[in-house]
Amino acid sequence: MNHSVLSAGLLLCTGVAAVAAPANKKKPNVIVILTDDQGSIDVNCYGAKDLTTPNMDKLAKTGIKFTQFYVAAPVCSPSRASMLTGMNPHAAGLPGNASSQEGSSGMPTDRVTIAEVMKQAGYATAHIGKWHVGYTPETMPLGQGFDYSFGHMGGCIDNYSHFFYWNGPNRHDLWENGKEVYREGEYFGDLMEQKAKDYIENHQDEPFFMYYAINMPHYPLQPKAKWREHYKDLDMPRRDYAAFVSTVDDHIGQLINKLEELKMRDNTIIIFQSDHGHSTEVRTFGGGGSAGPFRGCKFSLFEGGIRVPAIISWPGRLPQNEERHQMAFNIDWLPTIAEYCGIKELPEGVEGHSLSRVIEKKKESPHQLFFWKSGPGWAVRKGDWKLIGYPQDPSNETKLDFDKDLLFLVNLKMDSTEMTNLATQYPEKVEELKNDYLNWEYASPEDIPTKRLQIKHKANGKKVTIESAPHAKYKANGAASLVDGETGTRFFSDGFWLGFEGNDLVATIDMGKTEVINEISVGSIQDAESWIFFPEYIEVAWSADGKQYSKPVRKMVEPLKSAGQKSIRRIALQQEDINARFLKVTVKSYGKVPVWHSGKGGKAWLFVDEIAIQ
Amino acid sequence: MNHSVLSAGLLLCTGVAAVAAPANKKKPNVIVILTDDQGSIDVNCYGAKDLTTPNMDKLAKTGIKFTQFYVAAPVCSPSRASMLTGMNPHAAGLPGNASSQEGSSGMPTDRVTIAEVMKQAGYATAHIGKWHVGYTPETMPLGQGFDYSFGHMGGCIDNYSHFFYWNGPNRHDLWENGKEVYREGEYFGDLMEQKAKDYIENHQDEPFFMYYAINMPHYPLQPKAKWREHYKDLDMPRRDYAAFVSTVDDHIGQLINKLEELKMRDNTIIIFQSDHGHSTEVRTFGGGGSAGPFRGCKFSLFEGGIRVPAIISWPGRLPQNEERHQMAFNIDWLPTIAEYCGIKELPEGVEGHSLSRVIEKKKESPHQLFFWKSGPGWAVRKGDWKLIGYPQDPSNETKLDFDKDLLFLVNLKMDSTEMTNLATQYPEKVEELKNDYLNWEYASPEDIPTKRLQIKHKANGKKVTIESAPHAKYKANGAASLVDGETGTRFFSDGFWLGFEGNDLVATIDMGKTEVINEISVGSIQDAESWIFFPEYIEVAWSADGKQYSKPVRKMVEPLKSAGQKSIRRIALQQEDINARFLKVTVKSYGKVPVWHSGKGGKAWLFVDEIAIQ
Repeated sequence: MNHSVLSAGLLLCTGVAAVAAPANKKKPNVIVILTDDQGSIDVNCYGAKDLTTPNMDKLAKTGIKFTQFYVAAPVCSPSRASMLTGMNPHAAGLPGNASSQEGSSGMPTDRVTIAEVMKQAGYATAHIGKWHVGYTPETMPLGQGFDYSFGHMGGCIDNYSHFFYWNGPNRHDLWENGKEVYREGEYFGDLMEQKAKDYIENHQDEPFFMYYAINMPHYPLQPKAKWREHYKDLDMPRRDYAAFVSTVDDHIGQLINKLEELKMRDNTIIIFQSDHGHSTEVRTFGGGGSAGPFRGCKFSLFEGGIRVPAIISWPGRLPQNEERHQMAFNIDWLPTIAEYCGIKELPEGVEGHSLSRVIEKKKESPHQLFFWKSGPGWAVRKGDWKLIGYPQDPSNETKLDFDKDLLFLVNLKMDSTEMTNLATQYPEKVEELKNDYLNWEYASPEDIPTKRLQIKHKANGKKVTIESAPHAKYKANGAASLVDGETGTRFFSDGFWLGFEGNDLVATIDMGKTEVINEISVGSIQDAESWIFFPEYIEVAWSADGKQYSKPVRKMVEPLKSAGQKSIRRIALQQEDINARFLKVTVKSYGKVPVWHSGKGGKAWLFVDEIAIQ
Repeated sequence: MNHSVLSAGLLLCTGVAAVAAPANKKKPNVIVILTDDQGSIDVNCYGAKDLTTPNMDKLAKTGIKFTQFYVAAPVCSPSRASMLTGMNPHAAGLPGNASSQEGSSGMPTDRVTIAEVMKQAGYATAHIGKWHVGYTPETMPLGQGFDYSFGHMGGCIDNYSHFFYWNGPNRHDLWENGKEVYREGEYFGDLMEQKAKDYIENHQDEPFFMYYAINMPHYPLQPKAKWREHYKDLDMPRRDYAAFVSTVDDHIGQLINKLEELKMRDNTIIIFQSDHGHSTEVRTFGGGGSAGPFRGCKFSLFEGGIRVPAIISWPGRLPQNEERHQMAFNIDWLPTIAEYCGIKELPEGVEGHSLSRVIEKKKESPHQLFFWKSGPGWAVRKGDWKLIGYPQDPSNETKLDFDKDLLFLVNLKMDSTEMTNLATQYPEKVEELKNDYLNWEYASPEDIPTKRLQIKHKANGKKVTIESAPHAKYKANGAASLVDGETGTRFFSDGFWLGFEGNDLVATIDMGKTEVINEISVGSIQDAESWIFFPEYIEVAWSADGKQYSKPVRKMVEPLKSAGQKSIRRIALQQEDINARFLKVTVKSYGKVPVWHSGKGGKAWLFVDEIAIQ
């Protein structure tokens, strides 16, 4: 099944239908504020007690606060792409992080963004802050519907030099309207704030949509001095993280003040949310953010990775100082905003639903079911039940068992901490959610973890030597794993796969005695989001004595040119009745990430679990 | 031989003898300006045509320019440590780079620095700029003889946020007098310049010594806008590199202006030099600097790594606008300065010599012989002859042959480009320089590359499987290399060593039939500068059938707790007449860098070349 082709077919968009807003009423302005790596409870009104966020709280007081608001991905780029398109990340064409290298493409341009929707409806459209969903002229903000843009295109920057340090050359990354601009020494928070205030000042007579993507409190932790001083008694890294959150809060406060000062606040919808859970990466000192009672963090499909603070505030029309506990999603903003701005028709393929009835009439969530697919994992939420396939918790605060927890079932009403796996207790619920998941457009049977396969074959437990070493992180039980009969799951780091970074696998198997062989098969996984690709080919030579080998026979592997799809294949090479004791099997890596992939030129990974001889 | 202990014994210092400067004459001030990663010819007066350095050139016009000036190491910390102590890096106790992590020690405090010498002679002493020779209170500038200090302690910073991004957490690194200070947004070049100018203003009536260690043009390439604009037609990375060099030149110009304005220039000795050759690291876009006609770059013992621009200017006393072609070294500044400042007695162990007779009387170099030892390599210069052991050229512009070029002989008068190895043509010269090198205090026979050993043993060419994979960069020919009879050289990246980052080597050898075994030996290398350590122990178990193994026998390895010394050992475990076909050999890594090492807590490497069975 090629889901990508299917999705592309369904979602092919030809534009957005005409607007039908009442002519006699001034259209509301819309500002979507996104914060970066802000933890699930890192706002006072969400539970944080050791940091101060009066302005985020003010938004909650003048609006609706969601307590079960989710992002469609626990990672940066797909979360942003889904918000911008109202589609799931796979449908939006960006299931994994975009490259931060100039010249790398990101979200495909045939997807219709909220900026394009708003622009067509007569709105001025502005992007301010972080982008990270494409770094080519076509996929940068001006190519995706924004008529103004100021910010950085990669995943993170130093806030004073605007340099990107994550990998490769230390390089500058600051852009205004598609042109590189230098503002060395000026704090990026202040620059964004000034640009936003200027933009509002200049758009008092014309409705505008502003995507204000604040790159904080993402590392590097660079709060304003005032707040660093304020939190000086907290321990690191919470100290700098809290100070950074309050710095963001100040910037949001300045924006609200400007709107109030210009008497525009009542007619401006402000949406506020974090892009996903807090980070526990080493770059941020292992994490200063908090998910409170929730398990997990950034990269995880436990609540701590996907349940985020989210508020909508429109004092001129919506209820104030209220909470909603219904499930809601970042892909719902596009249809919600469209409805409130009088836009009747949505782009084809939008999967979100307007939250207006939840917000204004306290009706039930428009979603009974929601699906996530991120990296190796996936999840289904159905009512209070949630099933996670291949769960992970990079916070390392909790342990998972790869044998028992491949499918992890919880009931969030009974236990929102997700610490106990109910899968064995409610097998019929597992079955139901599994089937729901399989019926979802982006799911395939391969996504469902089953008991791992055991393969019985002629080289089981025989001697194997490898010329090219697997990476220390993905070495299973060494070369012997290749013939131990144990296959890997769809989770490449499950400990059953041997992973090779940039190099081939060349294995020599000694079966101990001469055997009659008809098939040599190699198990391989492709997970292009993680730069793992099927081999280019496999090649087999055989020998009776381990010295004189036959001419090698090669089997090409059809490439799977899909950034989003993950797949396991057992690549089989048939030969009639070989008589051999020794087999030399070469599994050829592409070496470099292929050109169709956004990571092109980087080191390609090759993963193999078993070489089976029949 | 434990050279470190020997050196420490010889160099133990009890202080500096009293001063004997004429009381009726005002002592000169001294400013040592060090630039960072500036290439051998990247000053106009050294040959650069595409960048502009009027102020560095002005120093040459008002002073003496050296054309064969060397640093004692092609890497940052040891180069700085040697300049500061007048000793070779091994004697100074810092043969490799110091850690950039707060709390890591660096140059031992019992070494006497030039700041301590000057302070004892009545000078005010200031450090401004980069430090990178220790990050504990005792090894930071105030602990090493400076009574004022402003700058960063690690290897590099962002010049606007003063954050360190090289590894680990993204962290702030700016200090004044041992206390962390925040000057976010202010350009570090301007901050240094202002601190230096203020210091001069405040020390008009008291002689001072200033170590002005400019952290540029080291990456990140962050020139001033004016210069980026000036060079806009050059290609990257030369464009930003050249702009950065001119930015540095401006800062030096401001310092000269300040001295002139205060009428202090004539009585101020200014010394200018780069810390080593230009960098070709990916962080700096693969390199914008130039060694001109010379081979090599930073990290290399070819001229491009160690021959640097160097000028001394003291208009009140020394000749002006002259060149000196004699060999001179950064360890010579301490005795030269001491002489010019009337300090009669030097700290014990100083290996440099005053250059006064070269400078003022054009006498021959005080050095007939000079030795370098850096990472895996070493070099001897004797007159025009130079012999390099284990040469390397990380610029990747030239190729070396590991079999033929292990010893690389040149005559710099005949060929300063070092492109042709004369070793086979002049074997007696090789022999002579080798012996000179062996007589040098820090050299040992193990430093001399010989034809690699071949070991004949019972497992030669037999089957071997390994559980833990070597790193992809150091995998030799895979597991089979462990029993191929080929041993490694002292150059751990020679292709004969298997390197393991943080993990153990567990190898199972199948000799094909039962053998009588009396000894199992494991060849291992320690190169602590590169975080490579001998194993903690080796352990052997044996089996007749590959299933039932004996109780393992362990042999502990005596650790070599020396940061500077490199050594190869063949660790042998004797057992009487084992009858076995299968051997399981565990070579235990420390996993983490041990506590006595400045990199403590980092991943320790383990390197093994051969497991020999006798």
